[in-house]
Amino acid sequence: MSVVLLAHGDGGLLTRELVDGLFLKYFNNPLLQQLSDAAVFNSPGGRMAMTTDAFVVDPIFFPGGDIGKLAVCGTINDLAVSGARPRYITASFTIEEGFALADLEKVVASMAEACTEAGVDVVAGDTKVVPRGHLDKLFITTTGVGMVPEKLDWGYHRPVPGDVVLVNGSLGNHGLTILAARENLGLDGALASDCAPLNNTINLLQKHCSGIKMMRDLTRGGLATAAKEIAEGCGLDIRLREYALPIDAAVRGAAEILGLDPLYLANEGKFLVIIDPAQVTKALDILKQSSYGRDSQVIGQICAGSGNVYLQTPLGGTKILGLLAGQPLPRIC
Amino acid sequence: MSVVLLAHGDGGLLTRELVDGLFLKYFNNPLLQQLSDAAVFNSPGGRMAMTTDAFVVDPIFFPGGDIGKLAVCGTINDLAVSGARPRYITASFTIEEGFALADLEKVVASMAEACTEAGVDVVAGDTKVVPRGHLDKLFITTTGVGMVPEKLDWGYHRPVPGDVVLVNGSLGNHGLTILAARENLGLDGALASDCAPLNNTINLLQKHCSGIKMMRDLTRGGLATAAKEIAEGCGLDIRLREYALPIDAAVRGAAEILGLDPLYLANEGKFLVIIDPAQVTKALDILKQSSYGRDSQVIGQICAGSGNVYLQTPLGGTKILGLLAGQPLPRIC
Repeated sequence: MSVVLLAHGDGGLLTRELVDGLFLKYFNNPLLQQLSDAAVFNSPGGRMAMTTDAFVVDPIFFPGGDIGKLAVCGTINDLAVSGARPRYITASFTIEEGFALADLEKVVASMAEACTEAGVDVVAGDTKVVPRGHLDKLFITTTGVGMVPEKLDWGYHRPVPGDVVLVNGSLGNHGLTILAARENLGLDGALASDCAPLNNTINLLQKHCSGIKMMRDLTRGGLATAAKEIAEGCGLDIRLREYALPIDAAVRGAAEILGLDPLYLANEGKFLVIIDPAQVTKALDILKQSSYGRDSQVIGQICAGSGNVYLQTPLGGTKILGLLAGQPLPRIC
Repeated sequence: MSVVLLAHGDGGLLTRELVDGLFLKYFNNPLLQQLSDAAVFNSPGGRMAMTTDAFVVDPIFFPGGDIGKLAVCGTINDLAVSGARPRYITASFTIEEGFALADLEKVVASMAEACTEAGVDVVAGDTKVVPRGHLDKLFITTTGVGMVPEKLDWGYHRPVPGDVVLVNGSLGNHGLTILAARENLGLDGALASDCAPLNNTINLLQKHCSGIKMMRDLTRGGLATAAKEIAEGCGLDIRLREYALPIDAAVRGAAEILGLDPLYLANEGKFLVIIDPAQVTKALDILKQSSYGRDSQVIGQICAGSGNVYLQTPLGGTKILGLLAGQPLPRIC
């Protein structure tokens, strides 16, 4: 294959190939090799996390958010699931000539609102304008830094068989909302993106629950891809129970119309927690009282194995879930 | 004006309006208000600097560099002129479907080479792919962090009348090279971008020269715009001597053909130093032995005044230089 395909950017198998075969080949260093949501490194004052994301979502305004809110939340959430307290972010705007200033203001206002909720500041930025036709409307890249509490030890080395898998709410809402808006499915009102800054919810859990082994946000590639990455990273299996997966009726219906699997659809306000079974009740209690955890569920558990994800169907069958492959959903985030 | 214009992204007057009227309105915090090359904030271990830049240069390969080298150097240089030692950078790639993987590899290899020279690591990244026609080839956003030495005190509050203005070499090379390549002026071989990581050169100067008051890199908007921003920031005048400005003959010639003023053209390996007159000889000695300072020159001085930049012509006349305005040069960096 000699050109970049849409699937290289979908967060699945080809993205992995690009990262392993190209980026890691040239940018080889222990921090990038972690391939985690955020790089965590020692700074003179403690451990710091840093992450970056490009946002190219189309349409830029959608039920539940817009490209600006998405950009702030995406970066904050990558830091938060790494255990970091997000503190500062930067924002770079690439804009098509002729873009309405009023729309730019709406996007910026929405970013500011998300920053206020999350307690972070935009401390640096950049703006480039390109001629008409060189870019579709507006792309934003946000980068964030945060401090990681001293004793935090989350990561692939922590889960053990018997640990429990939690999710903080319904799956697939963001991806489905974007696709429905793009295809004019006429589902307005029934669907909304779950886009939200998760750091306060995660912080609460982190503060009161000692048994957390690791977290992961469920963006591009959805729950299935994230679970597969965790399973491979830990060298253990994950067994998910299909009946326990929270999926809204509107999402389930629209996904069926579009021929899509909600487990592979992007979320922008959802995360997995791998946690010691002794702490599950406490964690659910905390999550259910938090801003973005009211529909939290136990959805599965970690088992001995070799990096597979199994989905147990209500009738007793078992499906194997792999990385997203072959169904690129461009400009979903 | 109700839409975004190319001039909103040229680093001049309209960029300033956008920053003041929109970004600062919503992202109002003391760090962003500094409007410096990098935000400098206190982290638990000391002062840290953070900066971000979007790169949309067209063509992506040009004499003297490519979009990858440019992205790494641009971010490193913003940190370096803030007095920070660049340490970690992130890179986000937005790619048009169908872009040649071999070209992507060339860009990534060139980024890696610049990182090695500068001594920084790419610790996190992101890749998005958009459908054909939604973006022209490849855009990259880089964000960098670095530590600021404890006692460093550079900034607009430091210059005083009598301080000397140095530049580390010839002006306008990057901007002219890009425009010439785009317009097929047939000047291949005569022009090359000055794109370079300046941190080692600046570090050397910083280490051995105590009288530095502030620095600024001379990117979009060129020397004139940077000088005007410094003059306004300090509330002092700057007097530049036209005959002392280092401008290569090829740049001067091509600029004349294109009707452009080299003082407003972007550089990607040039910086201004405002320095105590007692330290000028030492600074020039150090710079002339450094990698990117062999053609360093004294080009002017700081005078009492109220934020104006004067260019003294060889015949004794004086021109006032303002911010870049009215001549947007899109996709120059």
